Parts: sequence; C-alpha cells; structure tokens
Amino acid sequence: MLKIGVIGYGYWGPNLVRNFQEVEGAQVTYVCDLDPVRLQKAKARYPSVTTTRDVQEVFKSPDVDAVCIATAVSTHFDLAMQALKAGKHVLAEKPLADSSEKCDRLIDEADRRGRVLMVDHTFPYTPPVQKIKELVETGALGRIYYYDSTRINLGLFQRDMNVIWDLAVHDLSILDYIFREKPVAVSATGMTHFAGQPANVAYLTLFYSGSLIAHINVSWLAPVKVRLTLVSGSEKMVVYDDTNVSEKLKVYDKGITVCPSPENVYQMRVSYRAGDMYAPQIGTTEALQNLARHFIDCVEKGGEPITGAAAGRRVVRIMEVATQSLENKGQLLDIA
Amino acid sequence: MLKIGVIGYGYWGPNLVRNFQEVEGAQVTYVCDLDPVRLQKAKARYPSVTTTRDVQEVFKSPDVDAVCIATAVSTHFDLAMQALKAGKHVLAEKPLADSSEKCDRLIDEADRRGRVLMVDHTFPYTPPVQKIKELVETGALGRIYYYDSTRINLGLFQRDMNVIWDLAVHDLSILDYIFREKPVAVSATGMTHFAGQPANVAYLTLFYSGSLIAHINVSWLAPVKVRLTLVSGSEKMVVYDDTNVSEKLKVYDKGITVCPSPENVYQMRVSYRAGDMYAPQIGTTEALQNLARHFIDCVEKGGEPITGAAAGRRVVRIMEVATQSLENKGQLLDIA
Amino acid sequence: MLKIGVIGYGYWGPNLVRNFQEVEGAQVTYVCDLDPVRLQKAKARYPSVTTTRDVQEVFKSPDVDAVCIATAVSTHFDLAMQALKAGKHVLAEKPLADSSEKCDRLIDEADRRGRVLMVDHTFPYTPPVQKIKELVETGALGRIYYYDSTRINLGLFQRDMNVIWDLAVHDLSILDYIFREKPVAVSATGMTHFAGQPANVAYLTLFYSGSLIAHINVSWLAPVKVRLTLVSGSEKMVVYDDTNVSEKLKVYDKGITVCPSPENVYQMRVSYRAGDMYAPQIGTTEALQNLARHFIDCVEKGGEPITGAAAGRRVVRIMEVATQSLENKGQLLDIA
Amino acid sequence: MLKIGVIGYGYWGPNLVRNFQEVEGAQVTYVCDLDPVRLQKAKARYPSVTTTRDVQEVFKSPDVDAVCIATAVSTHFDLAMQALKAGKHVLAEKPLADSSEKCDRLIDEADRRGRVLMVDHTFPYTPPVQKIKELVETGALGRIYYYDSTRINLGLFQRDMNVIWDLAVHDLSILDYIFREKPVAVSATGMTHFAGQPANVAYLTLFYSGSLIAHINVSWLAPVKVRLTLVSGSEKMVVYDDTNVSEKLKVYDKGITVCPSPENVYQMRVSYRAGDMYAPQIGTTEALQNLARHFIDCVEKGGEPITGAAAGRRVVRIMEVATQSLENKGQLLDIA
Repeated sequence: MLKIGVIGYGYWGPNLVRNFQEVEGAQVTYVCDLDPVRLQKAKARYPSVTTTRDVQEVFKSPDVDAVCIATAVSTHFDLAMQALKAGKHVLAEKPLADSSEKCDRLIDEADRRGRVLMVDHTFPYTPPVQKIKELVETGALGRIYYYDSTRINLGLFQRDMNVIWDLAVHDLSILDYIFREKPVAVSATGMTHFAGQPANVAYLTLFYSGSLIAHINVSWLAPVKVRLTLVSGSEKMVVYDDTNVSEKLKVYDKGITVCPSPENVYQMRVSYRAGDMYAPQIGTTEALQNLARHFIDCVEKGGEPITGAAAGRRVVRIMEVATQSLENKGQLLDIA
Repeated sequence: MLKIGVIGYGYWGPNLVRNFQEVEGAQVTYVCDLDPVRLQKAKARYPSVTTTRDVQEVFKSPDVDAVCIATAVSTHFDLAMQALKAGKHVLAEKPLADSSEKCDRLIDEADRRGRVLMVDHTFPYTPPVQKIKELVETGALGRIYYYDSTRINLGLFQRDMNVIWDLAVHDLSILDYIFREKPVAVSATGMTHFAGQPANVAYLTLFYSGSLIAHINVSWLAPVKVRLTLVSGSEKMVVYDDTNVSEKLKVYDKGITVCPSPENVYQMRVSYRAGDMYAPQIGTTEALQNLARHFIDCVEKGGEPITGAAAGRRVVRIMEVATQSLENKGQLLDIA
Repeated sequence: MLKIGVIGYGYWGPNLVRNFQEVEGAQVTYVCDLDPVRLQKAKARYPSVTTTRDVQEVFKSPDVDAVCIATAVSTHFDLAMQALKAGKHVLAEKPLADSSEKCDRLIDEADRRGRVLMVDHTFPYTPPVQKIKELVETGALGRIYYYDSTRINLGLFQRDMNVIWDLAVHDLSILDYIFREKPVAVSATGMTHFAGQPANVAYLTLFYSGSLIAHINVSWLAPVKVRLTLVSGSEKMVVYDDTNVSEKLKVYDKGITVCPSPENVYQMRVSYRAGDMYAPQIGTTEALQNLARHFIDCVEKGGEPITGAAAGRRVVRIMEVATQSLENKGQLLDIA
Repeated sequence: MLKIGVIGYGYWGPNLVRNFQEVEGAQVTYVCDLDPVRLQKAKARYPSVTTTRDVQEVFKSPDVDAVCIATAVSTHFDLAMQALKAGKHVLAEKPLADSSEKCDRLIDEADRRGRVLMVDHTFPYTPPVQKIKELVETGALGRIYYYDSTRINLGLFQRDMNVIWDLAVHDLSILDYIFREKPVAVSATGMTHFAGQPANVAYLTLFYSGSLIAHINVSWLAPVKVRLTLVSGSEKMVVYDDTNVSEKLKVYDKGITVCPSPENVYQMRVSYRAGDMYAPQIGTTEALQNLARHFIDCVEKGGEPITGAAAGRRVVRIMEVATQSLENKGQLLDIA
C-alpha cells in the first residue's frame, strides 16, 4: 500500500486525490495546501486524510512514501527537490519544472536517491492517444508526414507562463510519447494582446531530422473550444477530435501516391486513394486511473515511467526554446 | 454590352463563362483553349460562342472588350500583358502573376492604357466575407486580436507552385479585403513530403504594426476538408466555417477583460464575458455573379476594383516573401 | 434546515444525496437501500449520514422531515404512501407512480396531511427548458405549431416498464411544463423485439384541442444518442439539441406565411421568411440543484411545486393511455 | 440510341434532360411544357432539341421512343396513359399516379402493349441506399429491428398533395427497395396548420408481419433540414445522414443481447456490445445517371425495372392508406 501525500488542492489536486484513493495499492494520507478553505473541503470529503498547511510535515511524515505536486509551476522545482531529498518518490504535475536546467537537477537527485520521478503528462494515459501510438508503431499509418494540432478556447489566462506552457505542453507530451524520433529545431510565433501578460496565442513548428513536421496552434482567446489533432501518414490518416464524445478517433484509409510521369507541367502525377473511414472502439478508462496505477507500478517494480523525468525534461526544453523563438518572431532555434 | 473573351476552359474557366453569360450587361464572345476537347464542350453548351486555340485571335478581335484569364499561373503575366497591349480590360484568375515584379509591370501597363486590371480573388465577393468586413468596419468586433485560418484537404497537388500560392492565397485576399491595415512581416514554415515537389503543407504567421496577428494553416495532405476561420476581437468573435451549409458564420458575444489588480501572482485579473451567439442570415448569391457585375461596373464607370491589381500585387508580394521564409524555416522577413 | 432521508441508492439516489447535501437549507440524515454494498459507499462518502436497510427506520425517525424516493417505479406508490402517512414530505423520482389511480390516492393523502408531494421531473429545472418556456409564454415563438422530439440511444432495457415510461416521460414532463394547454388524445405505436419484454421503441402523437400537435420518438435500440427537440411556431422555431455541449438551444427567425391568392392549383401561396439564428447564453446550473432548492422552498413556504403531484399525475395518465394505444397499434384514445 | 421526349420542364425536368443527354445510348429529342419561358431556356441550353407546348406532338412523333413525365402529380395518369397508348415507353416522376387504382390501369396498359413503365424513385439509385440494401441482403445487419427516418425542412408547401406524398414517398421507395418483406398495415397521424391546405406534418408507422417496424417523420415546417435514417439490426446498425457531405453512411458494430436469466425483476438480462464504427467509401455517381442507364437497359433488354410500375403502385397504395389513416388520427388500416 503506497502512502501518498498530495501538495496543492486547487484545480488539479482534487483529481489526484480522488484517483489515488480509488486505485488499488495506494492510499492518500496527507493533503497540503496554504488555503484553509481548501483543506476543509478535502477533510469533509476524505475524513481519514490528514490535512496541513505545512509542507515540511508531509516531507517528514513516515506515513508518506510518495508526494504528488499540484501547485503553481514556479514552485515545482523546490517542492520536488525537497521531497526527493526527504526520500520520497515524486509525481509532479506538468510541466515538470520551469526550466530544463532545473529538470536536470531533479533528475540527478532522483537518480542519486533511487527514487521514482514522474511527470503527470496526462494524455499518454488516455485511450485515444494510446491507440494513435499503436497505429504509429505497428506501421498502420505508413510513413508519418505530419502532426498538426489546434488546441484553443476562451481560457484561463495564466499569470506566470505563456500559452505554450499551459496548452502546447499537451501536444508536446503526446508527440514525445507517440514518436520515437524527437524534434531537432523549433520556430514559434505568437502574440500577447494585453500589456505585461505572457503570450496568449502561439504557433509552433517543430522540425525533425527527416521530412516529419509538427505544428501546434494554441490560444486562450478563441470563442469556441477546439481540440483537433491530425496525424497524417502515407497509408492512413488519423483525426482525433477530443471534443467529440462518442467518436474521438477516426482513421481514414486515404492517401496520395506521387508517381513519376512524363514531364508535362500541367499534368498531374499524383493519384489519390479514398477508402473507408473507421472509428475504433476506444476504452473509457479515466486517464488518471491509468497514470496512478502506472506510478504505483514504477515505485513497486522499479521500471522507468512512460512519462518519466527524461520525457518531462524534453518537453520543458522544447517549451523554453519555443518561448525564446516566439520572442524572436519565428527564429529557428536548435532544441538540443 | 461588354464583350468577353475567356482564355482557359479547364477547371475555373467554365465558371467564368457561365457567370458572364448569366449576368446582365455582358456576353461571352470567345472561348480560347489549347485543348480541342474542351473547346468542343464549350461550343456544345454555348453554341453562339466562337471557340479558338489561338489567343491572338482573341486579342485582335473587335468583338472582345475584356479578357478573362483562367490558365496556369505561370502564363498569367504574358497573357495579361498582351491583352492590355491590345487595349483589352483584364480579369485574371488569382494569383495575378507569379511575382510581384511582374504585377508591377502589369499595373504600369494598365495605368498607361487606362484599362481595368482586376484579379479574381473570389472570397471578397462571398456574402460571409462581406459580412465579416462589415463587422470589422462598424467596430462590432471591437479591437481585432487575431485572424486564424485552417484551410486543408486532400487536394490536387500543383506542379508549378507550393500550397501557399494555391490555398493561402484565399486567406491573404480575405485579409487584404477585411482589414485596412496591411502586414509588415511574415514568418512561414512548411514541408514537402515528395522529393522535387513544392511544399504541400505550410504555416504562415503575419505580423502587423500593432498587436494584430494572422495565422494561416494550409495543406494538400489532410484526410478531411477543413475551412475554418476565426476573427477574434475585444467585443465579439467570429467563427466562419465554410463547410457548414446552413450556418457559415457565427458571431459570439464573448470576450475577456484584463483588469488591473493587486499584485498577487496566482490571482486572476482576467474576467470572462460569455453571451449569446448569433448566426446572421447570409445571402446566397454566387460570388462570381457579384464579381462579374463588379467587373462590368468598373469597366463602364471607371472605378477602382475592390480586388484590383494593387490588391493582387500585395497578395503576391506576401506569398513570394512567405515562400522565401518557408525555405529558411521560419525566418522573419519584411514584406515591404 | 430540512432533514432528508433518501430511499434507494442505485443510479439516481447518489445524485439526490449529493445535491441535497450541497444545497443550502437541507441536510441528508438517512440513506436507505436493500444492498449493503451501496450503503457502504454512501457511508464512505458521507460519514455523517445514518445508513439502514430498513425503510421503517426512516419513516419513524424524528430526524427525517422529507423523504426522497429513488427506487424501482413499482415501489413508488407504497413507499410514498407510507412516508406521507408518517407525516413526511415526499419527493418521488419520475414517474410518480405506475398508474394514475395510484397518483390520485397519493394526491389525496398528501392533501389530507398537508404535506408536499413533488415529483422529480428533472427537465423543467434545466436552463434550456426554462428558456423554451419563456419563449413560449412571452409569445416570441408566435402561435405554436408543433413539438417534435427524438430521444433515442442504445439504452438500458427496463424490465418492469416500456420505453415510454423510461424516456418519453421526459418529453411529457417538458410538454406539461412549457404549454398551459394539455393534450386531449393520444395515438401511440411501437414494438418489442425481444419476446416477453416491454416495448423498446415507441412513437407517440399527442393531439391538443387546436392545431397544436406533439410527437415523441423514443428507443432503447439506436446506435447513436439523439436528444433533439423542435418547437415550431409561427414567428420563430427552436431547436434544442441536448447532446450539444456549447449550443444546446438555437432559435431560428424563420417561418412561412400562407397568403390568399388567385386559385391556381400550381401557384404557390406560401411565402418563406429566413432570418438570423441565435443561440442564447444558457445558464449551467445543475438541474437537481434548482429542483432541490425548489423542494425546500415548497416545504418551507407552502407553495404548489412546479412539478407537483398534479403534474406527475397528468404525465402518468398520458403514459398509461399511450401504452394502451400502443398495444392497439395506434388506436386513438382520450386522455381525460 | 433511345430517343426521349421530356414532358414538364419545371423543377425536375431539367435534371432528367441533362442526365439523358449525358448518358450513353439516349438522346433527348423533345421537351414539352405549357410555359414558353421554360421552353426558351431548354432551347437555349440544348439547341438540337425540339420544344413544343403540345403534348400530342410528342406522343405522335416517330422521333420519340420513350417519354419522361415530370409534371404535377395529378396529371401523371393521363399523360402516362396517352404515352403508353401511343406505344411509348414511360418513365414517370414519383409518385407514379395519385391513386393505386390508376396505377393498376397503367400497369395493365403497359403489360398489354409490352412497354416499359418505370417510376423515378430516385433514392434506390443512390450509392448510400444501394449500400444499405447490400448490408441488409448479405445479412451483415443481422435480423432487422426497425427503420426510422426523419425527413424535415422548411419546405415548399404543395397545393395538391400532403407532405406524405411529397416527402414520405422517398422513404417508402427506399423501404420497398431494401426489404423483400412488404408492410401489411399503417397508422399515420399528422396535422395541417393552415386552413384548407393539405397536412404539412405527418408521422407514419408501418407494420410488417414480424417484429420489423418502420417509422417516418416528415414536415414542411421545420427550421432545419434533417435527413436522418436509421436501420437497426441484431448485428449492426446503420445511420444514414444525407446532409453529411463526406460521411453519409455510418455502420455501427453495436447491439444488444437479451439472455435468459434467473427471474429477478431488477436484474439486467440484457448485455450490450459496442464495437467499431466504419463509414464505407461510397461512390459519388449521380443517382439520375444510374437511373437513366437502367431505364435504357430495361427498354433495350426487356427486364423488369428495379423501380417498376409494381413498386410504384405499392408505394402509392401505402400513401393512399396512410392519408386515410391520418385523417382518422392514427387508425390502423390494412394496406393490402
């Protein structure tokens, strides 16, 4: 039975508490937050949990094996570092930290202490994204041409990070999960429409070593919620619409073939293939259930998490380079 | 009665012939194409029209006041120049020419001869785009934040131009029409997935002098057809879905207000406004009817066309700079 | 503080408990169910609640002012009657009882005892249905032509009632709420596809005294979930799509006018009006919150509930007549 | 080369002319209409066609082998009868005639003369309906439970027939085509909202000898256009949405199984199966092309048309009985 302390009981913390309470093999023992009202809510709902405003109490308690961190991004590093030093396993909400250098230091500490350090990239634990990975890895899609994602809505403006860190992080974690290949360079543009605020719209293009390309469009300033991701391959193409309740994933047996043809400038050398579409039956397990189970497994059996600190670091690195590119209006920057 | 000669009877030419036949005040007298089969089709459908494979016949005929050019882009300049020199008014299919320098020379020639030179940017003649312009100009949208357009499908690969010249041209002509302000710089990325072919996916970011930003996502390699354009303003936001038959335009009375607030890094200073949505009744006149009527008006009354050569030149200039930026992976380039 | 005992903790009971716990002015004191596992769940989530398998304990407890009944339909009458006789106020899940005669007896008992007897018709407490009622009552829709609802999905087959009692009950409660006029006759058809089971598809037509007509299509055997309701009037028409997350209600400024015209059998005398559509901003309060608040109000201030026993009785009466009509393949039957 | 005379050049006639002109093996020689303006249009578009206001000219001409009738329904019988008596083959627009008795007389005449008498039920010639028939006949859908169709819009009010004859005719022709079994009884309801006009909304339930049931909902008074047809079977279920441009047909691998179980009134004996959905690639041939080809084939090779006079008669018979049932508010009437 893994004993869990959750730090931060704002937007995401209650989801973590609920899922670790419900999953087999874990038990939430502590909930920590600076706000007494939130602690009261936690206590009312989970009377057996100890609540506290003092994080040190969590770190010191022998009743805590692992710590979940669901606080503001700028505090992730400090809290995770203290937790690791106290010998706890750590699950940090995404992003892992606010710089890749801090991620490196966390990775070192976790390695030195032999503790699990995992980041809550939620999407790799959702059934649709797992299905996409399967379609990519089995070769069903053929050679992958591009990944293109639009993730926009009228959203909560974050004060301490731009829209890349809030929304593009999801696509970057999906890309990191579904493709073995990692991007080598990024060009990003964007804009802030409110003086002194971080960018609220952003457009990222990720270049890979071959002809694979990824594009991500994120915005806090759209009147409608769009969650539309395309993965286009030489054999099949996937449309993943996360706002569609019943058919999130559609696989199109469509494609084009470019054939050598006599050199006639007006003559088409491209032929089109249009076949059936199918929407595979997708499981409905809550992603956080899968993630909680996986975290427990990693702690108990010692494997490398699917969304371990290395993945967390790669995603943070891209976001920090993309932010720099955005500030330079699309300047191409190497990621490595 | 304006007598019209149409050059090119492939994909777009038949639409021009049909519309100039149906509109009051014009009459198609000549159809010219290199392909005898196409000419036969034109003759069968319009027995009174003279068909010919020889463009000179069209230029020399006293039965032709104006020439419509619907041929491959690389031939626009030569044909338009000859037509102008022969004293004809010219309506060229988009884009006006394949370089801004050629556009300049056409503009000079048209000015010298006092002839109308218009480009068939079709979208400014569609009722939804006219409505958007009205919403922008009356201030109904408030301060404009951004324009964001996705225009993708499994499309005909063009041999002689990249996807920007084929698809983004539509958005650029819409932008030129709805905003008085013109973009000052562009950053574009993209990729070709077939050796030796022009780029088949492209992403453009256009910067204006203020905080207005425009983004255009075009692809010939998407399994589904998407035609989704957002225009987001401080007062209202527009979603224009051109694939929606009955409700192409939706106007959302939504927005955000960023207020000064005590400096607490975690405290929201942004408030959201969510009101009604309405879909204005949009006329269903075919765009080419409006365009044909406008062309006749300009010839007869001598005004500057809405989509005149200057607009055509501005759009071509952006595409030529964007193509260069794309080749340099997002490098920011000035448009002027 | 109204003290509530909830009987039945299966599908709907937990929603009642949660909402009465959260609403101001009430407190759930008892949860009763025959199944110990369910009681355990209730206890774990609400440690302060007393759980019991014995309904008599609830009826006898001075710690219970009002009883919510969320058990199988066939048990509603007995439980409600006992509760009333014990001096409790009663909120019964829909339908109120399984016959109109039993409804009558409950109404008598509630009247005699001066107790509130309310039925949980949930839809009249939802913001979209409240908006429709407003559009009807203010005359915005003009003269109402018809109500047409499709409510189908791959659903849980009920053992003890046909699909009318499970699904059409929602439309009947909406109709009872939004129109002052009540239907006078019904013709229903339907089918059972599984021997010995109640009808799993049904089609109801309700006739009113004028030209208003209502039609309801319900099914447990459809591959897709459809919740589509039209209310068509002479001035405006409403489309209520309950599966649409963001725009449940659309109001169309459309209509037709039938004009007197010279008697020419092929000449149209009808003219069409097509105007804007708008989707009013709809509140997002949970219906059960509104309902819980209203129940408390009725108990405390003594008013007649919006969905009181009389409404519950009218809905049950229609269903019992419709079931008879269905068995007679569409035979028209008077409701009164 | 089959020589065709087309009578009626209003709404549907031009489609017939165009398709018989384009299909191989036929040629339109005559177009007849009472309205000179329409004849002028026909002549302008098809200069080689003879136009006339006198039907007798068509019937007497040796240049006419077959006659297409696209006039008002009330005139179908007279025109078809005269054409048959003049030895012409006949293709009549749907419905074949305005009573089954008239259909009988036409069938007799066609038999006696050995002429083809076909009705233009268009839907059986569309690729989606042909695919549904294939799914039914190969057993892919399993045992068929029901057919349910909604066909509503803000439509042209017909003066000389109710909405059943205008819209339900399509579903009845589809049913006649896809199922071998024919309905035995009908119950219909509906309403006219404009004094002296035929019913503008109607709801039909068709009973078959087994547990198959069909339901059709038609209206001229709906603000939105809906064309949604469900065919539900024990193995698979089809949703046919004719307003969906790219995915008209979706086949759901869903179903339910009702198992014998111990008699516990609250225990579910039904299990659900939820599998993939697929949207088969559907051809895009225009239905009238297929129909025109089939008519030519039947004339030349002498086979029974898919939508022959017998089918036409069966559909008319149902509509005449349904109209009577509607007037009697749902009274069940035998079709035979």
